[in-house]
Amino acid sequence: MTAAVPSLFSRYREPLTAEMRSVVGDGDGLLYRLIRYHLGWEEADGRPGPGAGGKALRPALCLLAAEAAGGNLHACLPAAAAIELIHNFSLVHDDIEDGDRTRHGRRTVWDIWGVPQAINAGDGLWALAGRAFLRCVERGIPVDVTLRAYGLLNESCLTIIEGQAMDLAFEGRSFGAGDTAPVDEHEYLEMIARKTGALIAGALAVGAMLGSGDQATADGFWRLGQHLGRVFQIQDDVLGIWGEEQLTGKSNSSDIRRRKQSYPVVYTLSRGPATARAELAAVYTLPEIDDAAVARAVQAMDEARARERAADLAAQSHAAALDTLATLPITTAARADIQELAAFLMQRQF
Amino acid sequence: MTAAVPSLFSRYREPLTAEMRSVVGDGDGLLYRLIRYHLGWEEADGRPGPGAGGKALRPALCLLAAEAAGGNLHACLPAAAAIELIHNFSLVHDDIEDGDRTRHGRRTVWDIWGVPQAINAGDGLWALAGRAFLRCVERGIPVDVTLRAYGLLNESCLTIIEGQAMDLAFEGRSFGAGDTAPVDEHEYLEMIARKTGALIAGALAVGAMLGSGDQATADGFWRLGQHLGRVFQIQDDVLGIWGEEQLTGKSNSSDIRRRKQSYPVVYTLSRGPATARAELAAVYTLPEIDDAAVARAVQAMDEARARERAADLAAQSHAAALDTLATLPITTAARADIQELAAFLMQRQF
Repeated sequence: MTAAVPSLFSRYREPLTAEMRSVVGDGDGLLYRLIRYHLGWEEADGRPGPGAGGKALRPALCLLAAEAAGGNLHACLPAAAAIELIHNFSLVHDDIEDGDRTRHGRRTVWDIWGVPQAINAGDGLWALAGRAFLRCVERGIPVDVTLRAYGLLNESCLTIIEGQAMDLAFEGRSFGAGDTAPVDEHEYLEMIARKTGALIAGALAVGAMLGSGDQATADGFWRLGQHLGRVFQIQDDVLGIWGEEQLTGKSNSSDIRRRKQSYPVVYTLSRGPATARAELAAVYTLPEIDDAAVARAVQAMDEARARERAADLAAQSHAAALDTLATLPITTAARADIQELAAFLMQRQF
Repeated sequence: MTAAVPSLFSRYREPLTAEMRSVVGDGDGLLYRLIRYHLGWEEADGRPGPGAGGKALRPALCLLAAEAAGGNLHACLPAAAAIELIHNFSLVHDDIEDGDRTRHGRRTVWDIWGVPQAINAGDGLWALAGRAFLRCVERGIPVDVTLRAYGLLNESCLTIIEGQAMDLAFEGRSFGAGDTAPVDEHEYLEMIARKTGALIAGALAVGAMLGSGDQATADGFWRLGQHLGRVFQIQDDVLGIWGEEQLTGKSNSSDIRRRKQSYPVVYTLSRGPATARAELAAVYTLPEIDDAAVARAVQAMDEARARERAADLAAQSHAAALDTLATLPITTAARADIQELAAFLMQRQF
């Protein structure tokens, strides 16, 4: 039951990439070479790259919301490009912070060029996002609407940085041994609302603001995005443990190896049965987590029925998203697109 | 002949700090604690800090230009706060990239909290800068003027990141031993125009734009800032080698120890007499540079008369700044302020 990728991803892909390319340019400065490498457009030696590795979910959401709210695709494209550039700024910095050496099967920027230049590449992506966004004015979006939408995006950005800082702080939290309590479900949900939810909600709200110029419409899309963001992240966490590597394209043991406090872990440690809790805590406090220990951790989470609980929570957020969607003043076609997207986020295997 | 700090620095200090504090807030999230620590407002344990360590040159330039161009101080303060926050974002990231463990006598953010959280703190400062800037609209700056000024600041930001990437790339350049040529004067001037000049020029241009709403005025201040930025950086380089540590508050051997390609070094290596060139290259290719080697390097630069050549170059840029200043449509009082500032940048010993 692999869910098909909704057509809206492919619908927007080509104009989005063209917009991003025209913003980044083809200058031969080192900064731009690193940025084009990260975006998949070039290899490290300058040869053509494999293309973007990600789904470009956030810009698709922005454009979907923009069109649903009555906006013009061409006018809103620069904002969608800005959102994808900001998402990539956060990926480049997160890869450094998490010590990840590969992404979508390619070496990460810091792994090739070192941490200092990778920090610059992330910073550069953010500045390019600002350059992109301001193009909306040239495309006919009123100046005040552009500025309000930019304010929404900037606050999203600050919020994802807060979320990343929280997530990193979680990694230092002990499992009964030290003087800090394990991360609880409430803290986890607060963290993902920031780290993941804010840019998904921001993408929808920015699109809705640009498309309608109306704050209430933007607010409604923001709430929709918060629910969808939770669905997205919980499914991401589930795939990080039980996903099929051939479909996800990433290791299903690395989250556990790096002691990530993903939802199934947080649930098991804070609300699982005593045996599962003790077993998972034992694995997470090992000096090194090998294959056998990963298997023990998964077994403990299975015993706690953490996967089922994650599915319940995602289903609740999915239902809340549909309730919010029903209140938005948009066309039937746009509503159907968003429903399709929400179903995909629930069921995706990759 | 220690030049006095122009009064404009103290004139703007208090309202600037108040504006920055109200943007950053006093939330107890880790991200904000790191940011307040870096800004000197708090110690690592939350006790009150010593206050800002820097001169806050850039926001002072912004406000000086804003008032000179007919603007209202209160309305333009948020932009000045944004500029100082952006400058501090770049310092937090530069400290990581350069491996600097102290700044103004205090441990750097990465040295206390580690690289990952320090990256976040820098990113957070940037997002807070965006939040600050958008307040200009509430203070009565027209929306289109605010957006154009923000565009100038964003381009400045991208340019300083390009400059930092160039500067780091210079560090890998060899001295005759490898297949790359030493950095030449032209490349050096191009780098500092980006790394240092862009935000000084940007600060003046943003202030002028907010104050006048006029692109030509902003362009004139931008040119003025490019000249002043060169004066500032060359004097910074000179102080990094021949400065009195008691006045500068920083080591006058660390630039050489880390093989920084500052102006006197670039000049000596590319245009000094053969003996000085060979001697300095020998020091810069040592596995480790000790006190005796630092002294040899300084002697080689003295032989090349690099300090005098730096003073000549700064004097040329100072003269060019005054020529540009003469073309700007501003009051006599504002002109006198900028002349005083330019003289300070030439003569400062700290």
